[in-house]
Amino acid sequence: MLRVGIVGVGTVGASVARILIENSDIISARSGKKIVPVLGIVRDASKNRGVVIPLSTNVDDVLENDEIDVVVELMGGVDRAFAVIKKALKNGKSVVTANKALLAYHRYELQESAVGVSIGFEASVAGGIPIIKALREGLSANHINSIKGIMNGTCNFILTKMMREKVDFQTVLKEAQALGYAEADPTFDVGGFDAAHKLLILASIAYGIDAKPEDILIEGIESISIEDILFAQEFGYSIKHLTIAKKNNDGTVELRVHPSLIPNSQMIAKVDGVMNAISVVGDRVGESMYYGAGAGGDATASAVIADLIDIARDGQNSPMLGFKKTLETQSLALMNSDEIITKYYIRMKVIDKIGVLASIATILGKHAISIDSFLQKADTHNKNYATLLFSTHICREKDIQDALIELKELPFSVQKPVMIRIED
Amino acid sequence: MLRVGIVGVGTVGASVARILIENSDIISARSGKKIVPVLGIVRDASKNRGVVIPLSTNVDDVLENDEIDVVVELMGGVDRAFAVIKKALKNGKSVVTANKALLAYHRYELQESAVGVSIGFEASVAGGIPIIKALREGLSANHINSIKGIMNGTCNFILTKMMREKVDFQTVLKEAQALGYAEADPTFDVGGFDAAHKLLILASIAYGIDAKPEDILIEGIESISIEDILFAQEFGYSIKHLTIAKKNNDGTVELRVHPSLIPNSQMIAKVDGVMNAISVVGDRVGESMYYGAGAGGDATASAVIADLIDIARDGQNSPMLGFKKTLETQSLALMNSDEIITKYYIRMKVIDKIGVLASIATILGKHAISIDSFLQKADTHNKNYATLLFSTHICREKDIQDALIELKELPFSVQKPVMIRIED
Repeated sequence: MLRVGIVGVGTVGASVARILIENSDIISARSGKKIVPVLGIVRDASKNRGVVIPLSTNVDDVLENDEIDVVVELMGGVDRAFAVIKKALKNGKSVVTANKALLAYHRYELQESAVGVSIGFEASVAGGIPIIKALREGLSANHINSIKGIMNGTCNFILTKMMREKVDFQTVLKEAQALGYAEADPTFDVGGFDAAHKLLILASIAYGIDAKPEDILIEGIESISIEDILFAQEFGYSIKHLTIAKKNNDGTVELRVHPSLIPNSQMIAKVDGVMNAISVVGDRVGESMYYGAGAGGDATASAVIADLIDIARDGQNSPMLGFKKTLETQSLALMNSDEIITKYYIRMKVIDKIGVLASIATILGKHAISIDSFLQKADTHNKNYATLLFSTHICREKDIQDALIELKELPFSVQKPVMIRIED
Repeated sequence: MLRVGIVGVGTVGASVARILIENSDIISARSGKKIVPVLGIVRDASKNRGVVIPLSTNVDDVLENDEIDVVVELMGGVDRAFAVIKKALKNGKSVVTANKALLAYHRYELQESAVGVSIGFEASVAGGIPIIKALREGLSANHINSIKGIMNGTCNFILTKMMREKVDFQTVLKEAQALGYAEADPTFDVGGFDAAHKLLILASIAYGIDAKPEDILIEGIESISIEDILFAQEFGYSIKHLTIAKKNNDGTVELRVHPSLIPNSQMIAKVDGVMNAISVVGDRVGESMYYGAGAGGDATASAVIADLIDIARDGQNSPMLGFKKTLETQSLALMNSDEIITKYYIRMKVIDKIGVLASIATILGKHAISIDSFLQKADTHNKNYATLLFSTHICREKDIQDALIELKELPFSVQKPVMIRIED
């Protein structure tokens, strides 16, 4: 028997307790023993959570309890959760966590602290998709060339709606909030931070990189407009919010999170609505893609319980993060974002007069940027304005950023130019 | 150090040896030890295989060799391979195999024989997709509601070409043979047998069912025509060769392999060319889908080596087939194919005269089958003939089969009717 304490009995915690009880037939058949939720820790014990397990408000009732083998941490937040997990590990308990923010900052310290016990965190990235296991074990014979993921359901729901119905960002955001797909303060999701946390976790498993959120390029979807959607559709692209990890020939790894134009022919361009998907290219296996629900109580709980079953099966044998940190095993360094090489799409709103195009072309030429396709649209609200949409051949991020500053300062530019990277 | 003997050094075996050597950096970082291919067994030692490992023609040089920890079986065939693996297990060696035909018949005997050693078989189903691990471990908290897979690259290549270019089966088959995507005798692939072997392996992990190929419904793609493709496109479907495992409310499981009409909106309908994909619905996690290369030396070798790394990480803890056979754990029985309930599409070629439709409708009505959509096309070759294409509402397989016999015997029917099941 494996006895489990659940710290934090919200939506996911309640699902974990319920599924452990309701699916106990298949869970014990697969793990070879019973897995029993014995105690839940909550802040307010009087609230009805629809679970039948005993509750306490004192976390030490789990952490100091010799009858409990595994601590499931679902309280969220960074500092207090970190303290709880460290105490659990110190007391000889294995830990299963869904806490991506904690892992984005402290995953290597946790790996070091887990001596003789396991830490499972499949639920921290795209709950309904066993991507951690796929990367850490299924593709373990491969050097990973790249990971491209749609890892935030809120962003994908909004972008899918915008593409299908040609409605602007703010309108769809309100709808997403009404449906419960976006929070009242949506910044964490639509600003790209949630996806960035997940990318950092996967990048550790693929590359052993110990980057933090503030080390990498993170952009959200707030500035995507209907014009961008129309341009994308005109040229056979979808706009998706992508997390990208890519190994370059010089041995550096680029990590970035931003909206991207992707050709419609790619499988990942076909992933719509709140669904998540992660495309991984290994040097031997080629491309594989993993698709499923990224959030939701039961999908996340399914991943938590898969980790519990692994622990019940006599421990997780593979190292928590696949292998140790960079320095000790491989020599992969995080690439400076300035060095990104890709294609770009740029949207500008300008006063429609002679000489505009020549000025823009001069700036682009100066920064060694050449244009691939170009579209000009009259502004529907003000006939003196025009919208210019263009994509570039491959060039350097630094050059684009420098050019964008100059483009913004052109006297006829009436709005900050918007840039979206293109992933071919 | 984990020392490996490879029995059968063809395309996959040579890839295994090469990747173990070329990717030894990442493989030892992930597994915590070196994995070394020490000997390969071949029938003809004089043939150049482009591998640097020593070769022998005597399989006992591996099986009776105390220096070898794991036997990789890549010889193919059923009986001899079975004997080789049993001897390896008896001699205390773990085994990794890609042999789906062997597993389709003897997987439970192998599970019984593996005492204190492991058997890895990730490479036996869709090499480039870690689906065995996903089902056995990643989704282990779930009762599996259904598995729908595109598991034969040859079939998917042919059907994709037929859909895109409106070319008939025989023409595309020849092209596939020229490209090396189909064998000179293509029956094993296009007849559905290869996919059936894979389905039986997955069905054991999901349901603990010990069915053999001859117990289940297996149909190939040989009778799909351009008319079927056109009907599918007219009504928003793709035609895919699907392997289906589905648990019914009465606790039985249906296992079947056949071409299917699938709505274009489903993710699995978007999987084209030689690629494989498997959609799994769990009772808690909902749908997840796994996409990648199904064949190829390096993709298959990648799966073989993932199993070796699991073994190097101190053994595979999860039971070989997820859990034991049906009787001992769950009470799932294989459903009789007659009881399948689904929608059907039927194509008939008839002499175009008054009363034809009435006769057909009478037969269908007698068998409680009602028509959903209907299309009649004039025959381009013979103006006296017409092609009738129609789909039904849901009905019973037995009723359709009985009706098909009567439809075939109608005096104005000039060709055996073709039936394709619809998976909504």
